Amino acid sequence: MTNQRKPRGPYRKSAERREQILQAAYEAVDEHGERASLQDIADRVGVTQPALTYYFPTRDALLLAVLERRDVLGKELAKDSGAGTHTIDAVVATTRHTTEHPGLAKLYVTLSAAATDPASPAHRYFAERYRGLAAETTRDVEAQQRAGAVRDDEPAAHVARMLLAVLDGLQIQWMHDPSVDIAAIAESFTRVLTAAADPAREATPDRPV
Amino acid sequence: MTNQRKPRGPYRKSAERREQILQAAYEAVDEHGERASLQDIADRVGVTQPALTYYFPTRDALLLAVLERRDVLGKELAKDSGAGTHTIDAVVATTRHTTEHPGLAKLYVTLSAAATDPASPAHRYFAERYRGLAAETTRDVEAQQRAGAVRDDEPAAHVARMLLAVLDGLQIQWMHDPSVDIAAIAESFTRVLTAAADPAREATPDRPV
Repeated sequence: MTNQRKPRGPYRKSAERREQILQAAYEAVDEHGERASLQDIADRVGVTQPALTYYFPTRDALLLAVLERRDVLGKELAKDSGAGTHTIDAVVATTRHTTEHPGLAKLYVTLSAAATDPASPAHRYFAERYRGLAAETTRDVEAQQRAGAVRDDEPAAHVARMLLAVLDGLQIQWMHDPSVDIAAIAESFTRVLTAAADPAREATPDRPV
Repeated sequence: MTNQRKPRGPYRKSAERREQILQAAYEAVDEHGERASLQDIADRVGVTQPALTYYFPTRDALLLAVLERRDVLGKELAKDSGAGTHTIDAVVATTRHTTEHPGLAKLYVTLSAAATDPASPAHRYFAERYRGLAAETTRDVEAQQRAGAVRDDEPAAHVARMLLAVLDGLQIQWMHDPSVDIAAIAESFTRVLTAAADPAREATPDRPV
């Protein structure tokens, strides 16, 4: 409402407003899943619906930003869970996050499926997300294989991709049937992948099988 | 065009027509994915679009029937592949089916994601499909654990569910990035689950790697 422009002020304010909108969208999706309405999100921030489009030109753009935040928070959560910083230790925590935040999980599954269509606006986002996650997880598995914590009779890149696949697949199974204890299945899966599952390791600590 | 009704004749004809429509829908989805149009399907059979609705009242009903056929053919294919009748041996063949029939895989992923919403007309279909598949796969894994072919240090029900999860998850990864060799990852996964991956089992001679 004023024409005075302090250096950096408007930029900072704009960044804050964007953050408010994103946080409101995250909470709305957490509560209502992909059905969260733009009106609800605008109301939470106290702006008009058209004002949202200044920061996020389309509904899809806003929802993808929510998923990105979910990925970031998911990593922090895994670190904070005391499970350590390794992906494989975070598998169980990740399945718990799914069952505790079904709205976000639902958004992820639906957008990811729609984005398999190369014509989808989110196609590139998901392609890059999976590539990035696979690369990061592979490096992590490699480190754990060197440390003797993960079996190394299969390539790290394969272990990483099957780990991401199990997470995606269990998430879908749980949404179709919430009585399935996907955290327990994730625990079985991590045991199968860890060196301890392999008796031969006891004899040769740094190079099993 | 005639009022003469031979006993069983109309029923047989109706079943044949239904089968023709389903087969045409299967082929159309195989070629065009979920975008396959009802007009295209009607044209392949040589009937009008409204005639389709006599056999399949909604587009969703027809598409779910296509997925059901995909499941049935998938099982036959696994048997014919020489991989044997065991689910775990069929994992690699199943991933190959995915990459060779992307249209069908895409339909499956999209409908399955949409059906996670309990309000979706396909919700019950998928819930039952997963429950049925999980039960069947669990029985199969149990039998293979007894035979010493699959490691038995984790519950069969967990192994079955993680197997289904890996298949779903790899399918999604491949659709986001077709350069990923999901058959090779599936091979790694089956090795991790088979007794042969565990040196302590080498004593069981009837089950080579």
